[in-house]
Amino acid sequence: MKRYVLIVAGGSGRRMGGDLPKQFIRVAGKPLLMHTLETFYRWDASAAILVALPGGDESYWRTACGELKCGIPHRTFEGGETRFESVRNGLRQITGEGLVAVHDGVRPFVAPQVIEDCFTKAGQYGAAIPVVPLTESLRELERGEEERSRPVDRHQYRIVQTPQVFHSEILKKAYRQAYQPEFTDDASVVEASGVAIRTVDGNRENIKITHPFDLLVAETLLSNRT
Amino acid sequence: MKRYVLIVAGGSGRRMGGDLPKQFIRVAGKPLLMHTLETFYRWDASAAILVALPGGDESYWRTACGELKCGIPHRTFEGGETRFESVRNGLRQITGEGLVAVHDGVRPFVAPQVIEDCFTKAGQYGAAIPVVPLTESLRELERGEEERSRPVDRHQYRIVQTPQVFHSEILKKAYRQAYQPEFTDDASVVEASGVAIRTVDGNRENIKITHPFDLLVAETLLSNRT
Repeated sequence: MKRYVLIVAGGSGRRMGGDLPKQFIRVAGKPLLMHTLETFYRWDASAAILVALPGGDESYWRTACGELKCGIPHRTFEGGETRFESVRNGLRQITGEGLVAVHDGVRPFVAPQVIEDCFTKAGQYGAAIPVVPLTESLRELERGEEERSRPVDRHQYRIVQTPQVFHSEILKKAYRQAYQPEFTDDASVVEASGVAIRTVDGNRENIKITHPFDLLVAETLLSNRT
Repeated sequence: MKRYVLIVAGGSGRRMGGDLPKQFIRVAGKPLLMHTLETFYRWDASAAILVALPGGDESYWRTACGELKCGIPHRTFEGGETRFESVRNGLRQITGEGLVAVHDGVRPFVAPQVIEDCFTKAGQYGAAIPVVPLTESLRELERGEEERSRPVDRHQYRIVQTPQVFHSEILKKAYRQAYQPEFTDDASVVEASGVAIRTVDGNRENIKITHPFDLLVAETLLSNRT
């Protein structure tokens, strides 16, 4: 089945404190987003890669790609105000049938085996996502109050990563729903449309680069990468 | 009030794949446990430090301390089979009244401000622990089955770190209870004895070094440390 990779890098969040959206921050000489593209290209050079960019950042990205001789074939499109809109816009670009991975632009460290496992399981069941166990204790806030919380059993929870992989028809149908605040990732959108989600063992290194501390970790992981 | 730091390094877990318990693995030239001692010593050189070691590893540790000229005053005692027993053994060494921090031996990166905040809040309310929000989506397993899970709102959860700080009398009373499998950390033991737990903002770098990936992160953080 044809393989699509929809990379969501449409955010303009500047939580890192710098001037650049985090997907464009350079680590080991290249924007994080480019490292993410390389990860998927190395996994399967024949997969069709689509990238959601913040409105207006298209020329910035094209210049960076030229300058750094990126050389990885991919199409770009304008992301929406929210992640949900970005994915919906991206799905309009996919006309054929196949398996679609939705992946965060700031997760360059997903293992090729994890991508492959997600595609395999999504091929069998329609929907598969990578998860990892928690290594630390977990508490749940009571009525959302910071000062009232209760311990919960961390073994009953899983941290959710990406790529989240779906059969294209399942994903398209799910994204025809109206947006709801409970949609925190693609799995929750698909689930709301009535399709069960299967899980695959993720790899711990597949962190979402969100805080300055994560950048330091990314720097280390990339300097150890061949 | 007198300040005690009870460092739990009694485990002999070899999950890292090496021959050494993880608290003895050397990063930037020193055992992780020694980095943790340094963190507390720099925070308050007058705090009384007690360290739970695995049975039989006392002489190994003393030799390492001598060889590396550790120079940080601390007492050691034999940890128990479980973390619960190690803490209970440690509390027997504390005869005076004061505030007691229980801290994981493999968490060298807690910020001095976080330790201070925990002690301050525990001084006011009796019990305080550092927590951080989750940055990734979370799912809860249904009936413990890996293949059945539901999305939960990560904003309603907090990751729990250490040091967990308590008034000595509160902690001692709590540890007179019989062990229960729900006791995942000291906060859950204290809570079961009827005392409410207050939270403090933790620092993200304060990771529990558990997996080989964490060691790589630790190496980076320590090489950036002055």
